[in-house]
Amino acid sequence: MAMKKNGDNQFLIAMQLTLGMRKLSMGELNRKSVDEYKQAEKLPVVVVLENIRSAYNVGSIFRTADAFLLASIYICGYTAHPPHKEIKKTALGAEETVDWKYFKNIGEAIQEIRGEGFKVYAVEQAENSRKLGSFTTDNKKVAVIFGNEVTGIEQSTIVLCDEVIEIPQLGIKHSLNVATAAGVVLWELIRRRIG
Amino acid sequence: MAMKKNGDNQFLIAMQLTLGMRKLSMGELNRKSVDEYKQAEKLPVVVVLENIRSAYNVGSIFRTADAFLLASIYICGYTAHPPHKEIKKTALGAEETVDWKYFKNIGEAIQEIRGEGFKVYAVEQAENSRKLGSFTTDNKKVAVIFGNEVTGIEQSTIVLCDEVIEIPQLGIKHSLNVATAAGVVLWELIRRRIG
Repeated sequence: MAMKKNGDNQFLIAMQLTLGMRKLSMGELNRKSVDEYKQAEKLPVVVVLENIRSAYNVGSIFRTADAFLLASIYICGYTAHPPHKEIKKTALGAEETVDWKYFKNIGEAIQEIRGEGFKVYAVEQAENSRKLGSFTTDNKKVAVIFGNEVTGIEQSTIVLCDEVIEIPQLGIKHSLNVATAAGVVLWELIRRRIG
Repeated sequence: MAMKKNGDNQFLIAMQLTLGMRKLSMGELNRKSVDEYKQAEKLPVVVVLENIRSAYNVGSIFRTADAFLLASIYICGYTAHPPHKEIKKTALGAEETVDWKYFKNIGEAIQEIRGEGFKVYAVEQAENSRKLGSFTTDNKKVAVIFGNEVTGIEQSTIVLCDEVIEIPQLGIKHSLNVATAAGVVLWELIRRRIG
């Protein structure tokens, strides 16, 4: 519909509220309490962070992991971990709900995750990578690694992975913000599971 | 495979480089030049930003729009637009390639976009919203609106949209970072188009 004048707009808003495109209030969002969250069954998807430089990015990824009810975040190398002022600023409380562990050595993190039955995927631009759009796995338990904002995942870490997943990128940069990339990949992994 | 000792790891890296999980170098990424980008046919997907508070978020969204070769960004209300120091910091050059327009009044932006044959969708949590995972449209030209980090999209803007798309969120916050949310929705819109 074309833009309406202000009076018409008020009328349309009233109509919309009646017909049901009304924005939900905070109270209507069915947000879980921290206790409910802790007890809820999580999706068996683990995020692994290797040498993420920006604690703000870490916080955003906590927030995504909370929204998608993911199993946990493995924080590795020099990536900042909670408690941390900058993580808190972008995680907005999600750092209190999402399970996380810190490993200085990412190899040990991967060993532990694989020991729990997870397949481990690097998100990177590499030879013979699998394009995200055609990614499938018959393993329900999936871990995905995201690397440093500038240098990506270490080749010595890719060695330890089952496969490399690549987000198709068509522009001049071929580099998404790491928290955006995590959102894209995690959505692709969970979209068929949460309907 | 389990983690190996350092010597074994070096061997595995060498093997992997031969077998092809080698990370691509910058020169191998087939990144478009600015001229190639400008001339490339874009996907008919438009991003509309309403009153985004953080110019860093705007910059990240430019970067995503560059990576996904989107038609343009309509920057509305008090959202920052280029040239802008903070946008530049997170867009990393994408603000030079992605087409954008600024509208003080988002209603006028929507009117123009719709006049060009686009369907317009609000990304919001609302009554009778369509869940992102089941979103389809028979209209190739799609515009998606993302709203303010705290208050979301204005109800008076939702009035002007064809439908509301909602990202399913299961945690305590029910709020993704807006640049992450844009990545998630834009990926869902383009994944079937770019293979």
